[in-house]
Amino acid sequence: MKKKIGRQSFILPLKPRIVSSAAFVGNKEGDGPLGKMFDVVCKDDTVGLDSWEQAESRMLQSAVKLALRKIDRSPEDIDIFLGGDLLSQIISAGFAARELRSPFMGMYGACSTMAESIITAAMLTDGGFSDLSICGASSHFSSSEREFRYPLEMGTQSSPTSQRTVTGAAAVAICSSDYKIEDPFYSDIAVVGGTIGSVQDYGITDASNMGAAMAPAAASTICTHFADYGICPDHYDRIFTGDLGSFGTQMLYELCDAKGYDLSNNHSDCGMIIFSPDQNVMCGGSGCGCCASVLSARILPDLNSGKLSRILFVATGALLSPLSALQGETIPSIAHAAVLERKSL
Amino acid sequence: MKKKIGRQSFILPLKPRIVSSAAFVGNKEGDGPLGKMFDVVCKDDTVGLDSWEQAESRMLQSAVKLALRKIDRSPEDIDIFLGGDLLSQIISAGFAARELRSPFMGMYGACSTMAESIITAAMLTDGGFSDLSICGASSHFSSSEREFRYPLEMGTQSSPTSQRTVTGAAAVAICSSDYKIEDPFYSDIAVVGGTIGSVQDYGITDASNMGAAMAPAAASTICTHFADYGICPDHYDRIFTGDLGSFGTQMLYELCDAKGYDLSNNHSDCGMIIFSPDQNVMCGGSGCGCCASVLSARILPDLNSGKLSRILFVATGALLSPLSALQGETIPSIAHAAVLERKSL
Repeated sequence: MKKKIGRQSFILPLKPRIVSSAAFVGNKEGDGPLGKMFDVVCKDDTVGLDSWEQAESRMLQSAVKLALRKIDRSPEDIDIFLGGDLLSQIISAGFAARELRSPFMGMYGACSTMAESIITAAMLTDGGFSDLSICGASSHFSSSEREFRYPLEMGTQSSPTSQRTVTGAAAVAICSSDYKIEDPFYSDIAVVGGTIGSVQDYGITDASNMGAAMAPAAASTICTHFADYGICPDHYDRIFTGDLGSFGTQMLYELCDAKGYDLSNNHSDCGMIIFSPDQNVMCGGSGCGCCASVLSARILPDLNSGKLSRILFVATGALLSPLSALQGETIPSIAHAAVLERKSL
Repeated sequence: MKKKIGRQSFILPLKPRIVSSAAFVGNKEGDGPLGKMFDVVCKDDTVGLDSWEQAESRMLQSAVKLALRKIDRSPEDIDIFLGGDLLSQIISAGFAARELRSPFMGMYGACSTMAESIITAAMLTDGGFSDLSICGASSHFSSSEREFRYPLEMGTQSSPTSQRTVTGAAAVAICSSDYKIEDPFYSDIAVVGGTIGSVQDYGITDASNMGAAMAPAAASTICTHFADYGICPDHYDRIFTGDLGSFGTQMLYELCDAKGYDLSNNHSDCGMIIFSPDQNVMCGGSGCGCCASVLSARILPDLNSGKLSRILFVATGALLSPLSALQGETIPSIAHAAVLERKSL
């Protein structure tokens, strides 16, 4: 059976299921509009450990364990843990994988990591290579600032186009349609397709304007997806981008408009959902953990309950490197998309 | 059809083919025993560019293009480019993907990246999600020293257990068994199975002893592979590890011996093949580009010519982070394995 559609898109005839998820977030995220929907809000952003990096890894590990516990499974039961984060050598995911002792495939797609992991896991599941896998992604405001921008101790002011990296980690459990699970946390969600992104670069050099760097990647993946599938934006109840923020969202609309697609009626950006404007986060939230935790806390529950029937989850990643930025390089970006729908649809 | 064997291993019933490869290496690698076998030896390790990082990315990009040119294909023809490297935010692969304009899946497995990419591409191909994909990995002595150890300008002495990061990039083209290709560069090689690694950590903290950090991961993946498949080491003409070097190889033999497997008769380490002992490289070569370029320059040609019939390619990665090392963390490692054999076998 033909599973490829066009060059970048695919369908998943065996409809792998999303059966569980969990999200751990930080204090500020807990104070936001979705605060009550996260599984755990960590009041201390070191979660009692010695460094932010250790805290981020622990949050990811905990999210994986909780997502599995919700379906009465443990890390020994998973075939593959796929995931990554923003830190060099993806240490949050690597150290989490060490503790989980599960087969591990490290992914790097910057903030697109959750979508990259989900489509990879779903294709491997559909292909018969995994019964139960778990996808995980994390980010941490303080570890990210250290990695990509300035020491927090400097107290640098945020620029108007900047976004706040979400302190959060989330995990999503994916299983084959015939995998026996007595009491799934979600009973009605399937991954039915997706689009693999290609790297885009519009020459942005400002590390405080990730939205502008990522919008072209989101537009490219979304428009390619529509063209490959032969559909229009209204095919989906809602299209969720990862972390474009308010500036990047505006740019996305203009880029898609130029290709004949009006996204303004049914699009939401996770970076704009997770914080409220009065939380002083400039253009919104960002980071691997942003769309991952919104997916777990809001999107999946809404799909499972029937509030949403079919959505496109487009996580967007800026492949920003502090080193290459210093060497005068621009910031390339990538976005991957997963089609999630009600199994009963 | 059952494709999973045990928890970590799998077989590929449709036997995706490896139809081409190419390797670009640096000067010192060109002076080594495999010198004449690489496609291109770059006499200048900046390849005329402004930084080592740019040079590494260009070498990877060039390897991808050359591997495709050998089968009369161009980057527009590939469904997915899967790959990564050792640098933060895998910039070598990311920037290469930007220039290639192909769908891109970023992988991070440190020096295990080539095997991680190959098994992922092979599973996606077997699953019907890709007709032609390309796997790429690169490393560069000078960019790696800057990333992981000391500024080269310091002139630090190498410790006896250290290895020299290979300056090299390689690409491998994988296609489905029914993909039409008029004149394949290799006509007789298939990826028929593999084992996904899990993270191992024996508490090594010395960033100059990668062999010791990686040997437990290699031993874990290899012994799991034997157990899952129900085979012994002599099932393979040869077992190639990525870059354990002489110290790590000795440790691998002891760890496998303890599990009842004698590897000493048919094992080679790419890190010990690529340089000769008189090249002053201490324990041998290392880096993503080490096993990737040896795979392309020696292993695949030997398989295609019939000199080898069935091999296990086990790339080994130390998930070393300069930051977590400073925070007192140990160095976890991972190894992924691919089973390559003559299609006509």
